[in-house]
Amino acid sequence: METIEKKVCDWIDSHEIKAVRLLKKLVGEKSTMGQEFHAQAVVLEKLRQFDAEIDVWEPSIKQLRQHPLFKSDRTSFKESPNIVARKRGTGGGKSLILNGHIDVVPEGSKKDWDTGPFQPVVKQGRIYGRGTTDMKGGSTALLMAMEAIEKCGIRLKGDLIFQSVVDEECGGAGTLAAVTRGYRADGALIPEPTNMKLFIKQQGSMWFRITVKGLSAHGGTRYEGVSAIEKSMIVIESIRQLEKVRNKRITDPLYENIPIPVPINIGTIKGGTWPSSVADTVMIEGRCGIAPSESPEDVQSELESWLKDLEYQDEWFKHYPAELEWFGAMWLPNDLTGDDELATTLKSAYQTITGEQPIVEASPWATDGGVLSHAGNTPVIVFGPGETKLAHQANEYIEKDALIKAAKIISLFIMKWCDIERIT
Amino acid sequence: METIEKKVCDWIDSHEIKAVRLLKKLVGEKSTMGQEFHAQAVVLEKLRQFDAEIDVWEPSIKQLRQHPLFKSDRTSFKESPNIVARKRGTGGGKSLILNGHIDVVPEGSKKDWDTGPFQPVVKQGRIYGRGTTDMKGGSTALLMAMEAIEKCGIRLKGDLIFQSVVDEECGGAGTLAAVTRGYRADGALIPEPTNMKLFIKQQGSMWFRITVKGLSAHGGTRYEGVSAIEKSMIVIESIRQLEKVRNKRITDPLYENIPIPVPINIGTIKGGTWPSSVADTVMIEGRCGIAPSESPEDVQSELESWLKDLEYQDEWFKHYPAELEWFGAMWLPNDLTGDDELATTLKSAYQTITGEQPIVEASPWATDGGVLSHAGNTPVIVFGPGETKLAHQANEYIEKDALIKAAKIISLFIMKWCDIERIT
Repeated sequence: METIEKKVCDWIDSHEIKAVRLLKKLVGEKSTMGQEFHAQAVVLEKLRQFDAEIDVWEPSIKQLRQHPLFKSDRTSFKESPNIVARKRGTGGGKSLILNGHIDVVPEGSKKDWDTGPFQPVVKQGRIYGRGTTDMKGGSTALLMAMEAIEKCGIRLKGDLIFQSVVDEECGGAGTLAAVTRGYRADGALIPEPTNMKLFIKQQGSMWFRITVKGLSAHGGTRYEGVSAIEKSMIVIESIRQLEKVRNKRITDPLYENIPIPVPINIGTIKGGTWPSSVADTVMIEGRCGIAPSESPEDVQSELESWLKDLEYQDEWFKHYPAELEWFGAMWLPNDLTGDDELATTLKSAYQTITGEQPIVEASPWATDGGVLSHAGNTPVIVFGPGETKLAHQANEYIEKDALIKAAKIISLFIMKWCDIERIT
Repeated sequence: METIEKKVCDWIDSHEIKAVRLLKKLVGEKSTMGQEFHAQAVVLEKLRQFDAEIDVWEPSIKQLRQHPLFKSDRTSFKESPNIVARKRGTGGGKSLILNGHIDVVPEGSKKDWDTGPFQPVVKQGRIYGRGTTDMKGGSTALLMAMEAIEKCGIRLKGDLIFQSVVDEECGGAGTLAAVTRGYRADGALIPEPTNMKLFIKQQGSMWFRITVKGLSAHGGTRYEGVSAIEKSMIVIESIRQLEKVRNKRITDPLYENIPIPVPINIGTIKGGTWPSSVADTVMIEGRCGIAPSESPEDVQSELESWLKDLEYQDEWFKHYPAELEWFGAMWLPNDLTGDDELATTLKSAYQTITGEQPIVEASPWATDGGVLSHAGNTPVIVFGPGETKLAHQANEYIEKDALIKAAKIISLFIMKWCDIERIT
């Protein structure tokens, strides 16, 4: 390790407590969709300590709706401001976007939590709370890395653009708003929870809703009706088959350790209104993965025609076809292939800190990387300290050691990518 | 037909318009659970025209809760009064309860209705609206029969006890309250929608709720979770098997034309909270039929042990057994076997009016007959003008001709059962 790198890492090590305090403060402010501003205020407070140009704005829904990649049910970004802090480089280096989303998914059933989801607690080296892993921990690592570099008096040649965006969990409109506001760079890092793996490809995804029709009848003469619940079981089973077919096609070695590279998740089901009646409608909602090599439109057509074929399996669907809608969000896939420099630089930083080669994989979920690359033409790599399996869960946590390690790797990566002014 | 019978039938025929007007008035007053009093006011207005003792009361929830047959989630009968009108006989005849429920099930989705569910409309010999078939049409037939007898100056020997009860759709607490208030008789007729068939046995039923557990995970790594939706499909399929097993046991010839004599209906399903998450809980609710020969307790144990056996089919259920609850209502089965006089008398009235033998069957659904016979020791026959398949449906209707025919049959039945004072 170079002296300057060691200095930065030592600063991070000796300020571990600051990282924990910042993360706890961020987690303490509930920032589910529509109420992100409390947590953004914490980010802003932190950014004001930096020597950077700060831009805070509520995205314009009117403007976003004109963008072809905007897919969202949102009608307003009131109280959901984006924040970008640009630290201008001295010139001659590559620019870098550091992107973290501030929104978190709802906490779910509180009784599943051992601690309050928004009352962060540190226990046995872990920080618990909603968003610790996904991804306020990642954003904390970014801010720690930036602070270490600044506090060590290092001047970067390339621009460093930190983004704390809203709406990632609902489709990426926050990052899209940052792109349309003009923020682009030579590369971007998103510290989503990758378990410290390098994700050079990310799966995209879309939400669908399928309405299955039945025919109501009294439960005592249920044979006079047609149960939409039974018919929905056929639909779900058929989607399982489609998932198999789609995943058989995936030969990318990056996916070889992933049991289902591109899953189709049935997330919710709801149907029927009365225990003693035959259900006449069932609605299922889910998430369909988009492989990095696919376009959303191709995937949509495939599911649509698959569902149409249900009529060959069950005559009922000929008369009452399962209705398919795409609703809410769409997360675009991302593929770094061909832009190896981001990966090479991050690998080298990883190796310097850990002494090991990082694992390189494709992510089973989408990130704002799809928007950055497709709309902003900015190559993206995803790497972060959180654990995928804890995201969206009760008792979500992050390992403090991973957070600190990630901050160090990211600080080295920033210095390598943007390059530094050497004091001669 | 005797002269006196002909006179009564002629009165009914010439007052058809009164029957239609009364039914429309009853249907026009929405009487779903908790708001029965508007429709009961119409009943009361009608009953005041009779020479009868009228009893109107709101059942006491405190008192009912002490009765072993009270199974209901209700906490109050405020604005849900029962009405009983007793017309004392001159003595020496058999007493008869005429029981109709005033409550109706909710109208469901209004867009499925061609007319307003509570704006009754007469079209091509049919009266449309919620409750026309189930069972304000039946109650109208009772009231027309009673009025015809009174208007023709006939005096009955036995007591005639007309009951307009609440809460049948939710478990029969209205009829139970009438029984505990002391109303019993030598026989009872309930004009539920039987398509003019005689139901001498009625199936009972109970509501159950099954909670199926899964393990939440991000939809992109759904293989890290366990879908409660997929597990619920196993539970539903298993219940289908139990239904087959249970129905194979039914050898009663009364059921031979009924495809599934004792159905288990899965009426509702609800699970998962987010399209991109693996659902960790699914709740299904349904109605389990009780054969006339069964006790509710036996059926409960059978379903319980059946669900326990799921662990042999899928290890998951060993660790997370499907949780079974019995909730809400319970309708007791009823079996007239051994008390043939009610059936014989009604058959003879039917034959006099139609010239044909009636169809005798067992009902695929429960009625308040279970409460009348089990709690009130009153033998019950079920016969009415509505059509089973229209009950609880959108565009529910009743055929005006069936309504009038039923009123005539019932009037003859009353005269035969209670016997009349002959003018000598």
